[in-house]
Amino acid sequence: MPQGKPERVPDDGLTTRQRRNRPLLIVHTGPGKGKSTAAFGMALRAWNQGWPIGVFQFVKSAKWRIGEERALRVLGDSAEGGPVTWHKMGEGWSWIQRPGSEDDHAADAREGWEQIKRDLAAEAYRFYVLDEFTYPLKWGWLDLDEVVETLAGRTGHQHVVITGREAPEKLLSAADLVTEMGKVKHPMDAGQKGQKGIEW
Amino acid sequence: MPQGKPERVPDDGLTTRQRRNRPLLIVHTGPGKGKSTAAFGMALRAWNQGWPIGVFQFVKSAKWRIGEERALRVLGDSAEGGPVTWHKMGEGWSWIQRPGSEDDHAADAREGWEQIKRDLAAEAYRFYVLDEFTYPLKWGWLDLDEVVETLAGRTGHQHVVITGREAPEKLLSAADLVTEMGKVKHPMDAGQKGQKGIEW
Repeated sequence: MPQGKPERVPDDGLTTRQRRNRPLLIVHTGPGKGKSTAAFGMALRAWNQGWPIGVFQFVKSAKWRIGEERALRVLGDSAEGGPVTWHKMGEGWSWIQRPGSEDDHAADAREGWEQIKRDLAAEAYRFYVLDEFTYPLKWGWLDLDEVVETLAGRTGHQHVVITGREAPEKLLSAADLVTEMGKVKHPMDAGQKGQKGIEW
Repeated sequence: MPQGKPERVPDDGLTTRQRRNRPLLIVHTGPGKGKSTAAFGMALRAWNQGWPIGVFQFVKSAKWRIGEERALRVLGDSAEGGPVTWHKMGEGWSWIQRPGSEDDHAADAREGWEQIKRDLAAEAYRFYVLDEFTYPLKWGWLDLDEVVETLAGRTGHQHVVITGREAPEKLLSAADLVTEMGKVKHPMDAGQKGQKGIEW
């Protein structure tokens, strides 16, 4: 809450303002809904601040995030808030020009991560969404130690939100804010499949 | 996931398509972050479908949701998706013209609920966000039985997302989809207060 008071003030040599404005590494994990949806909801606030936003989408299905992508494109193009750049794995990765790479998802993920590293080093954005980024970590496609070190050592004022199930413990340890989305009840339990406007 | 298969198909007399497109009552609850943020993220998908969206904000602080509100207004006004109507408690409730009502939050909440009832009866929107709506329920300002009955009996194809901590059990029972946001780690634990672009 905006008016919330911290329970204790750490002895970290920072002023309250410095501490308040420290860039955050945020993880949304757990088996429930809302991990990515909440990340895109946060992007609305970043957009409202005029911050450049970079979305890195580590998923393949064309159906996924089409609503979020279109909304953020309209917002980014409106010139009323921050610009939005949307990167997709596979065909969508604009910087991957190699033919015949469709089966090599691991290579795609590694190239995606290389782009994120370049953008972090260049401080290209102030708000990053690394959507479903826990999967290439979980599957060993990326070096977890390198990822955590790179994120922890990022310069400037770059907030990073990572989404996906089963975030590795090392990533959680490095994060400033972790939310676990728990599944309490889901329509699929009652035989209901996903539907437009809700799941995509 | 869009391609997910339900584990069992219920004997409810509905076709798969009918079941799929059944309007949902969704609750985001729990002590963690992302309850409302995920609801506004879902609104991006509803907007992309061209659905009329009604937001009913049961909070008082002017700081809250300013990013989400501005983004959804820009989207709603863009004519590229569904229109967005944003209702606020207190001064913001456009239908409350009574002077001197600022201290009577319970009356404001009741009038807000009456507006929701009218809009549900008129099928005014296809996607409703009842933001922080669990609090007037928790505080006894609204009749829980009446709220649950009204929501369960709504006609047409109206999705409703309710956010807030400590959602009452009766509301959870009536819901189709419930996600519990759990707090794993929060910057306030490290003495960090909320910051712009992240909390608002």
